[in-house]
Amino acid sequence: MKKKINISDSKLKIIPLGGLEQIGMNITAFEYEDGIVVVDCGLSFPQEDMLGIDLVIPDVTYLIDNIDRVKAFVITHGHEDHIGALPYILKEINIPVYATRLTMGIIENKLKEHDLLNKTKRKVVKFGQSINLGQFRIEFIKTNHSIVDAAALAIHSPAGTVIHTGDFKVDYTPVFGDAIDLQRFAELGKKGVLALMCDSTNAERPGFTASEKTLGKTFDTLFAEHKNHRIIIATFASNVDRVQQIINSAYRYERKVVVEGRSMVNIIETAAKLGCLDIPDNTLIDIESVKNYPDEKTVIITTGSQGESMAALSRMALGTHRKVSIKPEDTIIFSSSPIPGNEKAVSKVINELSMKGANVIFQDTHVSGHACQEEIKLIYTLTQPKYAIPVHGEYKHLKAQAKIAEELGIDKDDIFILSSGDVLELNEESAEVTGKVPVGAIFVDGLGVGDVGNVVLRDRQHLAEDGILIVVLALDRYNNYLVSGPDIVSRGFVYVRESDELMDEARELIEERIMNCLDRKVSDWGKIKMTIKDSLGDYLWKKTKRRPMILPIIMEVS
Amino acid sequence: MKKKINISDSKLKIIPLGGLEQIGMNITAFEYEDGIVVVDCGLSFPQEDMLGIDLVIPDVTYLIDNIDRVKAFVITHGHEDHIGALPYILKEINIPVYATRLTMGIIENKLKEHDLLNKTKRKVVKFGQSINLGQFRIEFIKTNHSIVDAAALAIHSPAGTVIHTGDFKVDYTPVFGDAIDLQRFAELGKKGVLALMCDSTNAERPGFTASEKTLGKTFDTLFAEHKNHRIIIATFASNVDRVQQIINSAYRYERKVVVEGRSMVNIIETAAKLGCLDIPDNTLIDIESVKNYPDEKTVIITTGSQGESMAALSRMALGTHRKVSIKPEDTIIFSSSPIPGNEKAVSKVINELSMKGANVIFQDTHVSGHACQEEIKLIYTLTQPKYAIPVHGEYKHLKAQAKIAEELGIDKDDIFILSSGDVLELNEESAEVTGKVPVGAIFVDGLGVGDVGNVVLRDRQHLAEDGILIVVLALDRYNNYLVSGPDIVSRGFVYVRESDELMDEARELIEERIMNCLDRKVSDWGKIKMTIKDSLGDYLWKKTKRRPMILPIIMEVS
Repeated sequence: MKKKINISDSKLKIIPLGGLEQIGMNITAFEYEDGIVVVDCGLSFPQEDMLGIDLVIPDVTYLIDNIDRVKAFVITHGHEDHIGALPYILKEINIPVYATRLTMGIIENKLKEHDLLNKTKRKVVKFGQSINLGQFRIEFIKTNHSIVDAAALAIHSPAGTVIHTGDFKVDYTPVFGDAIDLQRFAELGKKGVLALMCDSTNAERPGFTASEKTLGKTFDTLFAEHKNHRIIIATFASNVDRVQQIINSAYRYERKVVVEGRSMVNIIETAAKLGCLDIPDNTLIDIESVKNYPDEKTVIITTGSQGESMAALSRMALGTHRKVSIKPEDTIIFSSSPIPGNEKAVSKVINELSMKGANVIFQDTHVSGHACQEEIKLIYTLTQPKYAIPVHGEYKHLKAQAKIAEELGIDKDDIFILSSGDVLELNEESAEVTGKVPVGAIFVDGLGVGDVGNVVLRDRQHLAEDGILIVVLALDRYNNYLVSGPDIVSRGFVYVRESDELMDEARELIEERIMNCLDRKVSDWGKIKMTIKDSLGDYLWKKTKRRPMILPIIMEVS
Repeated sequence: MKKKINISDSKLKIIPLGGLEQIGMNITAFEYEDGIVVVDCGLSFPQEDMLGIDLVIPDVTYLIDNIDRVKAFVITHGHEDHIGALPYILKEINIPVYATRLTMGIIENKLKEHDLLNKTKRKVVKFGQSINLGQFRIEFIKTNHSIVDAAALAIHSPAGTVIHTGDFKVDYTPVFGDAIDLQRFAELGKKGVLALMCDSTNAERPGFTASEKTLGKTFDTLFAEHKNHRIIIATFASNVDRVQQIINSAYRYERKVVVEGRSMVNIIETAAKLGCLDIPDNTLIDIESVKNYPDEKTVIITTGSQGESMAALSRMALGTHRKVSIKPEDTIIFSSSPIPGNEKAVSKVINELSMKGANVIFQDTHVSGHACQEEIKLIYTLTQPKYAIPVHGEYKHLKAQAKIAEELGIDKDDIFILSSGDVLELNEESAEVTGKVPVGAIFVDGLGVGDVGNVVLRDRQHLAEDGILIVVLALDRYNNYLVSGPDIVSRGFVYVRESDELMDEARELIEERIMNCLDRKVSDWGKIKMTIKDSLGDYLWKKTKRRPMILPIIMEVS
């Protein structure tokens, strides 16, 4: 697969700052001499053990330390795992943002919320267009994905051209806009591609991902079969093409359409304004006016396809949605598949909807937005890269793509499964990981960014597991006697009203230990606290096999 | 499907005491006049929001209230969701337990742990055998399942015969023992079956579940393909037939077998002792001696197929297992599919194993233990019940079976999707839900059974979300002045060392409010606490958008 490409003395550096240890938080720096361009700036959603955390953003210390050289963010598409950290990171490094039309529309909604719109330089880029950023030229190439206006990037540098696919699939019959620009991938391949960074999400799946358009017929069939029922369809808020197809079927079957769920309403409004959605007149109605139409003449498109507890569909299922009550005659379609980790939550919502008598349809109404193995092979074969750098996916997915690349003839030593922070230096002659920059995950909790770290999380996990016992007492330091207490207050440990004996015994035990300390003239309160912790901890473990947090507080009085 | 059956004046009551709101916690009382027989006594594993809970057992108040009439537990098979609550419930109601050989072996292991073995009357029942319990006669019928010695029960009463399938599948070529006794199902059907209570777990899946034996060839193929590598296979601890097949392949390919993971070792020992496993001499070796054999001559069968963090495979993946280190040459087979809710944990383990270079195989090495739609239809067609009562499964599964029953010609009014606590009274003439008995879930946390309830769980959830702030102060009640404090101690809220300003401001704010209370001669300390809670809560919400638990503690000193 070797091709003659530009040769330069300097090497290109590729530095992923996130996105390789889990799904989400995609952000990669491309560095050539005195210029740095950053592709994407995504968030990730908290893992189960990150209690109370709202979202997770990348640590961009490396960019801050090199702020003078950082030219811009170039964004592949408008999903949270590619744009979600922007409002947080832009507060720290105010650089321009380049993106395609809908992607920028969604970014602008976010910037508005964070009061950053006027402070951020933005430029909408068209497919085929290139932007010059120092010695870099970044070209936006049309792809297909589960959101409109997704782009691959050709990152041209004096050391060679890297193609970053972003998230993509090959859809020959897209619902909106053109098919992926395979000709351009081929043309770049002819000229010589230094490295391909290709989406690995579906690299374990054989075959081809089906076209989004195949679902149009499915919806028509479902609308015909359920013509006497109200139809409620849950899907991903950002899947504009999916919404378009539901609207098309609704129009054909003379139904009015309601869009419900804040995130979906926002994106649909933005997409419609930008001309990415074609809504026939008098089709969309307000949720307030849905009651004026017969059930069988309406469709509700809603968020909540992942069983998210606060989303519209979950509230309908629980009977807490203010405008929509589920009826036994309803047909409810999940036009989605559960993201790993959400299976149980989705099942819960399905069970609740079923208990209300609704007919829940879960099969054959979703296609993936990511390339399967044959599509990945196609992109490799068109671009003929010297180096393969699988991106976007868990380790097993990256490894699956590496295997494909190897099968296609790329030398094993030319395939790089990177870790976040790795500095890959490459040109036509060679490529190797030459160093490591600081990376990490920063937790966002409410308004706090980074004020919850591992210490706080460990405390939350401890509290969650067995609760807390607080032991308070007042000591007179000078006369070394117990003025008041010890009192024990517990939360999340046992139901106190039925545990009198346990708590009384515990109190007596600590009182004895404290008196013993005071008798021995122990004046180091740290030692008294330690005695309380140890003796109470042992006692409770023996009695309950639990290890609650024990927090002694000594007040000084005189 | 109507048949002539015995008619009696009294009705049979079927009272599920658990198992219908979720997977697990299966327990059902059958009541006829002055006799009650209880089928199964299972636990369920805690839902995600049940923080710190180890397991969940059914509330058996109804049985305790009717203890004089309760004859026995009859157990269908040895899985936790059918036997796991026995040691807890037997402490409250000491009645005899009837079960088949391996089922009883596993129960006895549990009773030993809880020091109940000598206190519990037990009887091992053979397939085809019946036991008389008052006016009931309970017949054990051979079935197939993912554990050896699973039984269906024919519950004969003067009001008619109910067939309870337990968990089952139809396996014409079982690995151990006979195929399901379809002839007996047919015979009972000929004589007249009042009601069928049939496993619904796979009622949404079309077709037939494959025979366990099909996996034998798969293992042979994998052993041949990976003949130069150590093989590690993770599966369910209790799937004795699976272990048997792995041992068979190991024997054919001249490998030694190690069994690792406490629960698996226990069950395999019990199964071998009872003759449910056929282990060739010199095949099983100790984990200590595995180092004496070349890697390619060993197989390790291990727990951890569900990604359980403390299981052997997870510890191997993390590099914390004392005896086994994963090597890049290892072939690791997941002979399992993730139970809903465990998908992410399983992926995590796969990624970790992959990062260590191991080759992880996840496909085509598992078959389900539950009947799919065609098997369910077969049982209905053989037994021809008057009433259908789908059991075992989430609501959507029960509903899917109800649909099958209806398609097979059972009257819609004769199909009952029950809730736990429902009292279904039935005989040949009629069936209806006539009442409700108390039911519920009791949480087991460490040694505590029932001492953690909803109040404690809500506190744990609150603590997990945003942590706790404790405000302590010492007041002199008589002179109404602040002797010491207020001091604020927090856990799980913010990283305190970097939040000086926030905590200082908070302290000043409360001090001001307390002084204000004291100035106004507020002597009700409840009011002072409420003031602290409200003002601090508002302040922190404004500053952080978090709502930690706020716990004011006032010490009285004089």
